[in-house]
Amino acid sequence: MAQNIYDNDGFFAGYSTLPRSRCGLEGAPEWPRLRRLLPNLEGARVIDLGCGFGWFAAYAAEMGAARVSAFDISRNMLARAREINAAPNIAYAEADLDTLTLPRDSADLVYSALAFHYLKDLKRLFGEVARALRPGGAFTFSVEHPMFTAPSSPRWIEGADGKACWPVNNYLIEGERVTDWLAEGVVKQHRALSTYLNLLISQGLAPTHVEEWGPSDAQLAADPTLGAERQRPTFLLVAAQKNL
Amino acid sequence: MAQNIYDNDGFFAGYSTLPRSRCGLEGAPEWPRLRRLLPNLEGARVIDLGCGFGWFAAYAAEMGAARVSAFDISRNMLARAREINAAPNIAYAEADLDTLTLPRDSADLVYSALAFHYLKDLKRLFGEVARALRPGGAFTFSVEHPMFTAPSSPRWIEGADGKACWPVNNYLIEGERVTDWLAEGVVKQHRALSTYLNLLISQGLAPTHVEEWGPSDAQLAADPTLGAERQRPTFLLVAAQKNL
Repeated sequence: MAQNIYDNDGFFAGYSTLPRSRCGLEGAPEWPRLRRLLPNLEGARVIDLGCGFGWFAAYAAEMGAARVSAFDISRNMLARAREINAAPNIAYAEADLDTLTLPRDSADLVYSALAFHYLKDLKRLFGEVARALRPGGAFTFSVEHPMFTAPSSPRWIEGADGKACWPVNNYLIEGERVTDWLAEGVVKQHRALSTYLNLLISQGLAPTHVEEWGPSDAQLAADPTLGAERQRPTFLLVAAQKNL
Repeated sequence: MAQNIYDNDGFFAGYSTLPRSRCGLEGAPEWPRLRRLLPNLEGARVIDLGCGFGWFAAYAAEMGAARVSAFDISRNMLARAREINAAPNIAYAEADLDTLTLPRDSADLVYSALAFHYLKDLKRLFGEVARALRPGGAFTFSVEHPMFTAPSSPRWIEGADGKACWPVNNYLIEGERVTDWLAEGVVKQHRALSTYLNLLISQGLAPTHVEEWGPSDAQLAADPTLGAERQRPTFLLVAAQKNL
């Protein structure tokens, strides 16, 4: 199973202070673009893989989803989700996404935000997603961008021309990366961008949109620190459709 | 129109000495992988966009293609192609890919190697490709990888941990890049990886495989200098299929 860093008390405390934790979806700058990759949620059967505090589950319920099955490995996260984002048609459940199985032909949308880069066996999970979706169903997810996860030293540095640059190396050497973010020894799995896409295609999930997220002009005007995201995006957003 | 750098005498002289110029397809380390993304060429009607010295056109003819329509903007390249890679079923023609139009429903395969990163209007050209292909037809191409084309200073540097790294910046700032490679002032067009994919999808061309090329173990053993390609790939290979 993947490391369950969200049940590390120090990490959880730090994570809880982030805008995306305090403010929900609106605290995540990539959300407006991710939202555009979603199908109509009215009456939809939704699966949320790595639901965290349940912000998306609550959004889907509010948008008229018939039901939301929301999974997370972290008991900390699930406890908070049940507290702040409960709804009659949301079912929160503890699950390890590296072993979770899903009922066949049971979903119109599978959604996941910033969870897959923790998982070791994505091919297996994408197979589960493909089987869980109805034909034509949607799979929308975000992950940390592979340029973000690749480097041996993931910090901005000054380039030869004096401009800030992101030091990419190890890009095609996939696998475990250990970084210190909110806690020491956070374990992620680096994959090339092409690997995400080929895993989808191999499971009968056709990419319909790929986005390397950067801020809009309005977002940049409101928060100039987002400018770094145009230099090297942190997030990869993908929409795919199960083959008919 | 795009810059026609291949008709710059200095550039052409330098380019002519590269392994991929002297040895043909076998001189290009990414060719074995690109070849695997091709459909069966027996009886196929093939279009080659940016044919260069005609190595692929000759390969396609040898593999039984019914005909190969091979286009390039460079008279230098075309003259050499007609000299060293002539065949009865290959037609070489001068064309600017930024304005070229193609006959409808006329091709089973459209192929292009390392040409599109010179073009300004790829959406228009992909539309031409989509119309030229029969339903189910294949579109296989390579370009310089967006991580390779993005930086303001595209040279390996030493990272904070002492390891070589590739200084990515400007990744989401698409458009012209001017570099000095074989000649001064070579003009390329940088696009994000996602832009290539979304342009395909928007034209009814479904990606079937995406490859950020790196060397095989055997290639690496034979030529250790290829190791840098695992740190940051130079080539992006894409296979797509026109929707049925």
